Amino acid sequence: MANGAETLVNTLVDNGVEVCFANPGTSEMHFLAALDNPRMKSVLCLYEGVCTGAADGWYRMKDVPASTLLHLGPGLANGLSNIHNAKRASSGMVNIVGEHSASHLKYDPPLTSDIEGLARPLSHWVRRAESATTIAWDTATACAKASEHPGQIATLILPGDTAWKDAGMPVVPQGLTRARSAPDQARVDEVARVLRSGEPTLLILGNKATRGRALDLAGAVAAGTGCRLGSQFFTARIERGAGRTPLERIPYAVPLGQAFLKDFKHIVTLETKEPVAFFAYPDKPSLLKAPGTVVHSLVADDEDSALGLEMLIDALGLKGAAPLVQERIEAGVPSGALNPESIAQALSAALPENAILVDESLTTGRQTMGLTMGARPHDLINNMGGSIGYGTPVATGASMACPDRRTFCMVGDGSAMYTIQSLWTQAREGLPITTIIFANNQYAILKAEYTNMGAGQQPGPQAMAMIDIDRPTIDWVAMAKSMGVPGVQVGNAEDFHKAMARSTEMDGPCLIEVKLY
Amino acid sequence: MANGAETLVNTLVDNGVEVCFANPGTSEMHFLAALDNPRMKSVLCLYEGVCTGAADGWYRMKDVPASTLLHLGPGLANGLSNIHNAKRASSGMVNIVGEHSASHLKYDPPLTSDIEGLARPLSHWVRRAESATTIAWDTATACAKASEHPGQIATLILPGDTAWKDAGMPVVPQGLTRARSAPDQARVDEVARVLRSGEPTLLILGNKATRGRALDLAGAVAAGTGCRLGSQFFTARIERGAGRTPLERIPYAVPLGQAFLKDFKHIVTLETKEPVAFFAYPDKPSLLKAPGTVVHSLVADDEDSALGLEMLIDALGLKGAAPLVQERIEAGVPSGALNPESIAQALSAALPENAILVDESLTTGRQTMGLTMGARPHDLINNMGGSIGYGTPVATGASMACPDRRTFCMVGDGSAMYTIQSLWTQAREGLPITTIIFANNQYAILKAEYTNMGAGQQPGPQAMAMIDIDRPTIDWVAMAKSMGVPGVQVGNAEDFHKAMARSTEMDGPCLIEVKLY
Repeated sequence: MANGAETLVNTLVDNGVEVCFANPGTSEMHFLAALDNPRMKSVLCLYEGVCTGAADGWYRMKDVPASTLLHLGPGLANGLSNIHNAKRASSGMVNIVGEHSASHLKYDPPLTSDIEGLARPLSHWVRRAESATTIAWDTATACAKASEHPGQIATLILPGDTAWKDAGMPVVPQGLTRARSAPDQARVDEVARVLRSGEPTLLILGNKATRGRALDLAGAVAAGTGCRLGSQFFTARIERGAGRTPLERIPYAVPLGQAFLKDFKHIVTLETKEPVAFFAYPDKPSLLKAPGTVVHSLVADDEDSALGLEMLIDALGLKGAAPLVQERIEAGVPSGALNPESIAQALSAALPENAILVDESLTTGRQTMGLTMGARPHDLINNMGGSIGYGTPVATGASMACPDRRTFCMVGDGSAMYTIQSLWTQAREGLPITTIIFANNQYAILKAEYTNMGAGQQPGPQAMAMIDIDRPTIDWVAMAKSMGVPGVQVGNAEDFHKAMARSTEMDGPCLIEVKLY
Repeated sequence: MANGAETLVNTLVDNGVEVCFANPGTSEMHFLAALDNPRMKSVLCLYEGVCTGAADGWYRMKDVPASTLLHLGPGLANGLSNIHNAKRASSGMVNIVGEHSASHLKYDPPLTSDIEGLARPLSHWVRRAESATTIAWDTATACAKASEHPGQIATLILPGDTAWKDAGMPVVPQGLTRARSAPDQARVDEVARVLRSGEPTLLILGNKATRGRALDLAGAVAAGTGCRLGSQFFTARIERGAGRTPLERIPYAVPLGQAFLKDFKHIVTLETKEPVAFFAYPDKPSLLKAPGTVVHSLVADDEDSALGLEMLIDALGLKGAAPLVQERIEAGVPSGALNPESIAQALSAALPENAILVDESLTTGRQTMGLTMGARPHDLINNMGGSIGYGTPVATGASMACPDRRTFCMVGDGSAMYTIQSLWTQAREGLPITTIIFANNQYAILKAEYTNMGAGQQPGPQAMAMIDIDRPTIDWVAMAKSMGVPGVQVGNAEDFHKAMARSTEMDGPCLIEVKLY
């Protein structure tokens, strides 16, 4: 007879959840024992923010949820900021949170907290598994929620006694998963009318519209009508590079975003909404579009972009049209000083076909990424929630999902310090990840934002000390070594290119510190 | 005219909150500018769990709250587990959480989350500062709540526009701080009757009863009545060592705790409650006392232990009695293999007078700490909430509070990885902290707990891999070096002693890796 924990693990696997990013504690010992199941891949992470970020990365590449194992309320809390990022990326995830047995809770032992209260703000679905006999039902429901489109955050709280008691015959609900629905024909016809009018129109593609068949179809619409195709500054995953339909990236800074959008009479959204400033500034607007621009939602978040674009192509009479595609831009090997152009050139030259590029490079990447449009085809992953420390965990999970591809994780030094424990899991699992640290020794983005905010021309020395992360400088090669990852520091463009190229021949992880100071 | 952020900082300082452990983001740029105030000490931490743990450590040594600056909901989330630990330690703290301006929130930009929802489960007091003109009132209220006895977690949410608008003339409430009340005389008389009866009695001291005048008075009661004095396994801060009244530590493991308590007819509690098992086990009770033992609350959590013990001494006619005190045990310098005894001997020999000892050594320390009772007088700080990763941040804050004393932070390798970013702040501030990593390459505590839980004799290989943290082993000396902290690895008792003794002659931080594998 299986106990609650064993039934839980079996039900996860039966519902397609085949990996668990775990950091267990005493109350999860029966769940731990149940993880000794050949159908489930368990991955130890040394901090919960790595677990939840890795689950996000897994989903981005697989479109299937991963599970996490977190130790009571504080373990969940440690994973919340990357759950926030995953939620904003529409990544499905099943969090299993250990909890004291019901009989013990009333004594309020030290690790007690309001787990539902902590889970609810960032979960779509939260349930306490009250009994081993219903754990299969609860788990299957969690998996169904997480597997919906868009992906949902499902959090299942597992009291110790639910884990260790006999589960009996598992009973699971049927037919929970909702199919993606088609957009409304009237909306499609309205957008077709707009496109035929010839008025300047921008299609903004989000979530699953930025890859596969949907992206091809959008390219055909652009080729056939002359509309332009854009993406938000941050997108969950874009298939990009030579041979793919290119998307123009709406700039981050408010004045640049406004300038980009100002001439469009129409904005058409697919699985996203109209562009909004990331932050509020005293003298800048929240919405980036020009006054008078009309916004049309073609495909809602829970609808099917490929289907919506097929309907649009039918309405436009463009069936079989060839999509716009990006040409390969052969970038030579760069040399000399590191700057946005030479960094981009090195990336374009070194990225192998089918690489996964996780971007959390902030200041550096903002000026660089546009210049890599003609690199070999690759997948680009961005931070959707804005909470830093997403990059190295997401790269870990993406690489677990796609071990045959090399993952490049570009990350600013400030962000990398948030969840640096990821490197250890990368070494343990032998993952083919090249972590590129852009080390400028500062939260550089904040120096620009200080002025943008109207807080003054420059912070005073005591305030400036809060956004400089020199004194001491971080030795990234020593940091990587401490967790079993080989590293190298580079100070010019040719060495950067060489280090990246060499990393593509390695089996496991490595780290490149790009010294920008 | 001061803006909201400037008024906030001034009001914090006016109310005794003179340090801010900060990790700012774009929405806090005006608060950052306001931190450029010579009355406020600002300390940059590279992860929010370090900020909140440091605030806890500051309070433990000062009995005065620190503030933190956290970036929106995810920044708060990253600090929550150490807020949980601080809450369980009754440490007061004022968290300032940045937030989007009200006008921007309705567009649901990426970093938006339900900050009140995230704050509430682990805060005693939560408020959104709706206007610059009332920020002084809100801030003074937060400081008063945090300064109560026992200390409270106060979380103030600061929208951008509240920070940047003119605050006008600050208005603050008066008379908010509650005085500590005296215990009820009838309870005192009842405990006096119990003590005079000669029946075996244990006084369990918690929170502020374990130091200063209250501890002396408890020592006098023990000397005069023959009762015994105990502490919970974990206590916020104990003044301990030679010359202090010694407290017997109630063991962690349920059978040992039961054995310790079985002969007491009475348990008398001061600022704590009766002993409860840390976790629930299938075949073990939650309460540790023997059936029939009577529990008497002498001093409630919000009352004054020194006052209560004075009343008790009056009732017992023991006025002026000398307290029981611990003698100095001269421990010679140990040699040979590292084991609980030799580690304890090295600690006892090396700890300088007035050291601060932050203990998160789990498996190793559990067998060791009892043997350091006769060391030179020192303060011992424990983790009250059970969420690992509290040690290095709390040591950071305790050392900021007491820069003239050396702080020793004993931490297991698994715990140290949680908030290892602390080392960087220690290096930056030049703090006299000796971090001692007990490196056994495993979550050793979980191996014992696996069997205690009845999950089986030993985990299967796939489960075992989730509680071993070898493959790769962590190189702690490289880790420390990466953040500017000198480190050394030791493999025997004499080298361990030597490294500790040498560290007491240093000005800044250092790390000792105690290799136990």
